[in-house]
Amino acid sequence: MSETPLKPLRKGEQTRASILDAALVMASRDGLEGLTIGTLAERMGMSKSGVFAHFGSREDLQIEVLKLYHLQFEQEVFFPSMSAPRGLPRLQALFTRWVQRVSHEIASGCIYISGAVEYDDRPGPIREQLFNMVRLWQLALRRAAKQAIDEGHLPATTDPEQLVFEMYGLVLALHHDARFIRSTRALEHAQSGFARLVGAAPPQQAS
Amino acid sequence: MSETPLKPLRKGEQTRASILDAALVMASRDGLEGLTIGTLAERMGMSKSGVFAHFGSREDLQIEVLKLYHLQFEQEVFFPSMSAPRGLPRLQALFTRWVQRVSHEIASGCIYISGAVEYDDRPGPIREQLFNMVRLWQLALRRAAKQAIDEGHLPATTDPEQLVFEMYGLVLALHHDARFIRSTRALEHAQSGFARLVGAAPPQQAS
Repeated sequence: MSETPLKPLRKGEQTRASILDAALVMASRDGLEGLTIGTLAERMGMSKSGVFAHFGSREDLQIEVLKLYHLQFEQEVFFPSMSAPRGLPRLQALFTRWVQRVSHEIASGCIYISGAVEYDDRPGPIREQLFNMVRLWQLALRRAAKQAIDEGHLPATTDPEQLVFEMYGLVLALHHDARFIRSTRALEHAQSGFARLVGAAPPQQAS
Repeated sequence: MSETPLKPLRKGEQTRASILDAALVMASRDGLEGLTIGTLAERMGMSKSGVFAHFGSREDLQIEVLKLYHLQFEQEVFFPSMSAPRGLPRLQALFTRWVQRVSHEIASGCIYISGAVEYDDRPGPIREQLFNMVRLWQLALRRAAKQAIDEGHLPATTDPEQLVFEMYGLVLALHHDARFIRSTRALEHAQSGFARLVGAAPPQQAS
């Protein structure tokens, strides 16, 4: 995480990064608990001890996968939205990039969402890591909601915690209906829901 | 499913019902995929072949567990709500009983919700069964929403599909925040969200 992208990776670092990329694909598809050193080694055409040389244990690997996922989420959703003006535009940008990312993940599945179900009653370091990341994201959304209230873009009576709860619900329903029900209108529903939530006009719908 | 509750169960039926009850508890906690004949037999103090005598295969057992879950859901949520007056009162009753059930399930987990994540990319008979049940429930909610529109309790411009998408989102967020985040305000958030959704006054909040 402290490497600058400009410094070329050494051979060992390249191998480690490749293993991690493959592990992220597997975890997105089969869940973090579905990730095993054995199947990962097979996929990479490596020996199990070759994989162990880069990650001390399966749990270390799972946590590194989570960190990589978090980094990608920040780079794709969080940081670019910060350039939108403070207030409702920034909250809107965060939501839009979030649903875009979840829509692209429909084929694979979102690790934050499926992970929450996998680890909701499975205590330990992986749950801790996942919990901290989801919590951080909810707090970032609340901060943006609070700024939108402070800027007068949302009514002063708005409860940021309630608003973020409902935004989260829209994204969970998108993930559920698109992935499980295979509904083609899920993205449109999530966007209309958000528009209603912040009192904006719903997006024009083709009938 | 065609047995009347009044007819006493024969010994074999009693054993089968006990196995199924234990299987439902296990599936709620560990997921349907976590359910194995081996661990179930161990829990029941039976041999594996004893369990197999009642259920031909692990898949049969998983499907029977789903059917039992569906039956309980109908009896706890759907049927009692049907006695509420047609329109918004009935929609409100369906939502209230649903969130109550999910709240009680916080300790164990809702099979419809965790199953949707488990089986979203795992085709086969279990996914089919689960899909049909969730679909049936969404259609029942849409029918109640449509009746509320017909009765003039909701604006004529209301889209029942959109409304049910958002109701589903509130329940998914309740399940997520109560089970994974361990938020104590999740139930209140779900209820306030629904009140806003149907244009009713939000419930009084203790501050």
